Amino acid sequence: MPGKVVCSRRIVPIRRVGLYVPGGTAPLFSTVLMLAIPAELAGCPEVVMCTPSGENGRVNPAVLFAARTAGVKTVFKAGGAQAIAAMAYGTESIPRVYKIFGPGNRYVTIAKKLVASEACAIDMPAGPSEVMVVVREGDSPAFAAADLLSQAEHGADSQAMLAVISESKEKGSLMIDAVEEELDKQLSVLPRGEYLKSSLSHSAAAVVRDERAAAALINEYAPEHLIILSGSESLADMVTDCGSMFLGPYSPESAGDYASGTNHTLPTSGWAHSYGGVSVDSFVKKITVQRLSEAGIEALEPVISLMAEAEGLEAHRAAARIRCSKKG
Amino acid sequence: MPGKVVCSRRIVPIRRVGLYVPGGTAPLFSTVLMLAIPAELAGCPEVVMCTPSGENGRVNPAVLFAARTAGVKTVFKAGGAQAIAAMAYGTESIPRVYKIFGPGNRYVTIAKKLVASEACAIDMPAGPSEVMVVVREGDSPAFAAADLLSQAEHGADSQAMLAVISESKEKGSLMIDAVEEELDKQLSVLPRGEYLKSSLSHSAAAVVRDERAAAALINEYAPEHLIILSGSESLADMVTDCGSMFLGPYSPESAGDYASGTNHTLPTSGWAHSYGGVSVDSFVKKITVQRLSEAGIEALEPVISLMAEAEGLEAHRAAARIRCSKKG
Repeated sequence: MPGKVVCSRRIVPIRRVGLYVPGGTAPLFSTVLMLAIPAELAGCPEVVMCTPSGENGRVNPAVLFAARTAGVKTVFKAGGAQAIAAMAYGTESIPRVYKIFGPGNRYVTIAKKLVASEACAIDMPAGPSEVMVVVREGDSPAFAAADLLSQAEHGADSQAMLAVISESKEKGSLMIDAVEEELDKQLSVLPRGEYLKSSLSHSAAAVVRDERAAAALINEYAPEHLIILSGSESLADMVTDCGSMFLGPYSPESAGDYASGTNHTLPTSGWAHSYGGVSVDSFVKKITVQRLSEAGIEALEPVISLMAEAEGLEAHRAAARIRCSKKG
Repeated sequence: MPGKVVCSRRIVPIRRVGLYVPGGTAPLFSTVLMLAIPAELAGCPEVVMCTPSGENGRVNPAVLFAARTAGVKTVFKAGGAQAIAAMAYGTESIPRVYKIFGPGNRYVTIAKKLVASEACAIDMPAGPSEVMVVVREGDSPAFAAADLLSQAEHGADSQAMLAVISESKEKGSLMIDAVEEELDKQLSVLPRGEYLKSSLSHSAAAVVRDERAAAALINEYAPEHLIILSGSESLADMVTDCGSMFLGPYSPESAGDYASGTNHTLPTSGWAHSYGGVSVDSFVKKITVQRLSEAGIEALEPVISLMAEAEGLEAHRAAARIRCSKKG
């Protein structure tokens, strides 16, 4: 009998979301776009943004322009852990939000983790970010080095990992040498060379025998960014744990950071085992809905009663039985 | 030019998930089904379950039967905060998992919150559960009372809220009186009457003027369970914040708990502002993928370079430029 039990699921935007955009030396206006655009697409009715002002007391104009472009109407000059607390609990001027998004320094990160357990949801726990670049014989050591450096530039605690697929340990080591040579060469023309070197110092390179071993390494490490410089999709198909994949020689991480269309807010520090990156999905909730007819509750009542009784929940049973005219 | 920049999103099951099933007085085998079935549907390759043994040293057979029926192959006799820690970090015998699901007492809940900030994802923060029952003139006070009682039975800290839609305060109060009379009547034939009374003592009833006011109250309270005993979909359509909706006179919460097809693992204590309930989605991650052709990176390079330069990330710019033969 159709219509006895009708279930559905409604996708509803989160009513009030908060975006945190760090200050610091460079204006991270791309972060504004990566958070505000999916919020807008999801249809969140209220989007507020907190960002600290610079030494001149003003918010960087690039950040404000990005916010306006992406439809953010409310921006508060507030930064640090206190901005996270303000959005999580609400203040006289800053409204309480139900989910907070965005990166930040260690104080911001700890504040997000604290509020996540008692006040509001967060996009994901954050940590130092990382890339794993997978190369094989014939790939460009220059491209691999450029990708490692673009990760190293993110911060002193970033990790830039190199995996070489080679049946021969010797040939694999030669590739590592070639990439290191390129690193030195490219470093010399980049600003902040010493700083990049220190980032690279706690990174690592490994030779793996085949694609299966490469996939095992990738899935255990769960890199935020995974670059596979060449090869068919066979390795990519074995990958289950990473944030975003960059396939082929012409797909640098910086394409994903700015322009390819994917979101650059991704799980770091192994959280790719558990989470995907931010997307429109991150700004919606799903509400389940059920409507039973009289015939529907009569059909299900025996099951409900049996299970409720077995779990010792008599009032649960009674709430079903009272609706059944023949039994109530 | 097609194929210049190809993006996609892969839906991947979380590799290892942990289900926690509390012990206590009643065997909550329905919890096993509500967690293990979506894990199975999502295709999670490894599902482990922890549940404490009873006083006789054995796990309740109903729990084990439900686990086997739902495809769980690995069950550990472990309970409490220590079981959560074991699954989050791994032990010699219990494997580390990447997401933990399931209810528990306050120690389990605190343990889940702690691991969520440093080791693995959790389904959602938990707290005391609640129902809001919305009635109007003509609805059955007996049905409303039965639903309030079935919530009160969950625990001493459960809340069972009644909202009466009525243009007249007096008529609304009469409905509250009628429901209270039914509560007394039904209580008298239920086990644990004194215990139910204490649960109801911190619940509340309110009269609201119209559907708009009812929706505002519901969305501010964000009940785990929302029962709307009568009326068209117009009120339901205004609801944005709740876990699961039960529409019409024949849809008790206990139908959703056991048999209607929705998941009963739902956001409690206001977390419905931020989260939806557990579903197959909770057991998967989404990995973004991009592949650019040479023409693709040449088309995007100016954008990448402009944005990287403005954010002060020179190595990001270089990783794009080096791929462009004419510029590299």
